[in-house]
Amino acid sequence: MKSHTAYLTFTTEQRREWIRITEDVQSAVEEAGIAEGMALVSAMHITAGVWVNDDEPGIQADALEWLDKLAPPSWREPSGEVAAQLLPEGGDYRHHRGGEDNGDAHLKNLLVHHQVIVPVTEGKLDLGPWQQVFYAEFDGRRPKRLLIKVMGE
Amino acid sequence: MKSHTAYLTFTTEQRREWIRITEDVQSAVEEAGIAEGMALVSAMHITAGVWVNDDEPGIQADALEWLDKLAPPSWREPSGEVAAQLLPEGGDYRHHRGGEDNGDAHLKNLLVHHQVIVPVTEGKLDLGPWQQVFYAEFDGRRPKRLLIKVMGE
Amino acid sequence: MKSHTAYLTFTTEQRREWIRITEDVQSAVEEAGIAEGMALVSAMHITAGVWVNDDEPGIQADALEWLDKLAPPSWREPSGEVAAQLLPEGGDYRHHRGGEDNGDAHLKNLLVHHQVIVPVTEGKLDLGPWQQVFYAEFDGRRPKRLLIKVMGE
Repeated sequence: MKSHTAYLTFTTEQRREWIRITEDVQSAVEEAGIAEGMALVSAMHITAGVWVNDDEPGIQADALEWLDKLAPPSWREPSGEVAAQLLPEGGDYRHHRGGEDNGDAHLKNLLVHHQVIVPVTEGKLDLGPWQQVFYAEFDGRRPKRLLIKVMGE
Repeated sequence: MKSHTAYLTFTTEQRREWIRITEDVQSAVEEAGIAEGMALVSAMHITAGVWVNDDEPGIQADALEWLDKLAPPSWREPSGEVAAQLLPEGGDYRHHRGGEDNGDAHLKNLLVHHQVIVPVTEGKLDLGPWQQVFYAEFDGRRPKRLLIKVMGE
Repeated sequence: MKSHTAYLTFTTEQRREWIRITEDVQSAVEEAGIAEGMALVSAMHITAGVWVNDDEPGIQADALEWLDKLAPPSWREPSGEVAAQLLPEGGDYRHHRGGEDNGDAHLKNLLVHHQVIVPVTEGKLDLGPWQQVFYAEFDGRRPKRLLIKVMGE
């Protein structure tokens, strides 16, 4: 079994961003020199995620608007009554007592999930026609790391 | 390390369906001829998911009703005020500007997640007593693919 | 390829609990004797999950309050109008017709996801500085199992 680990660091300009990393995952597979196996793509922070979906800006804007309703930030007005009720009782996250303001980003991490496994067949990522891999940043503007571990033969 | 990849294609009759695939995953493991390892079960489309849960029709109906509230289709009336507010501002998904009507299915893909890993021990899927593997179709009635990649020894 | 499987059993005192298991996963890696590879950490029940996040009680209380709004128990009053509307039509889960009362726990299993993969590098869990692994019990007070399967070299 061959194994290869790559670490990427992102410092996004926006607090929240979707960053396409399909090509980075393919590069790690080529560095590993495997034909058959898989690539684990896993955020190393607890306020980020990894999503496999279409590279279509409408979907990404839809998903972020929706995530802000389901897991509302408390650093701005809730978008409506549903977001207001999904905030914690009292209106702010317990997590913020320590001085943080990213309680929503921890819940977005839960919803999106922090990792995916990309299968590798004949040396290529074995993805469907519209599947692209995205790093989902929910509390950026500082260096955050992601791990790609390739295993196979 | 042995590796084996199987592809399944589903063309569901309904737009949304839960399809039990535990036995397909076990068959792929037997074709691979491994005793120890794992099977990655991963939808190759971005409007489907894979869920490990009980094969109990009540749970499946509960889960679909609930997913339709959290990630509401815009091709029918929202079920209530919560679903209405969880639709994008203006009432329709940005993704639909290109002529699609499956924006909700992309968000259901996010909630359910598109893949699971099934552990394999002594040649068998190492699942708990009620765990079954389901392909979750959210935009069917056309051919959609799923990959099963078995790796081990 | 080396492989090692450990099974943990939890009988929680509370119906719902977050249990830190990072050290159990590291122990399984040491028992496996691998330097490079991964550990699959997977609940064997369908009313539990596994979450990688910060070991901070505020986050855990925030997350449980929020999960109870998104996937409301029917064994107590819904916390507000959003939780009430996210219950099934008629107010109770179809799954409960068989005598169960844990319909919400199946939906929490869907949201949290039942498994994670922890990468292993140089014999250690390759986690970010705040990442800890938690077993998420949503219907405890009885023995429930979790599998850790380590694979690598």
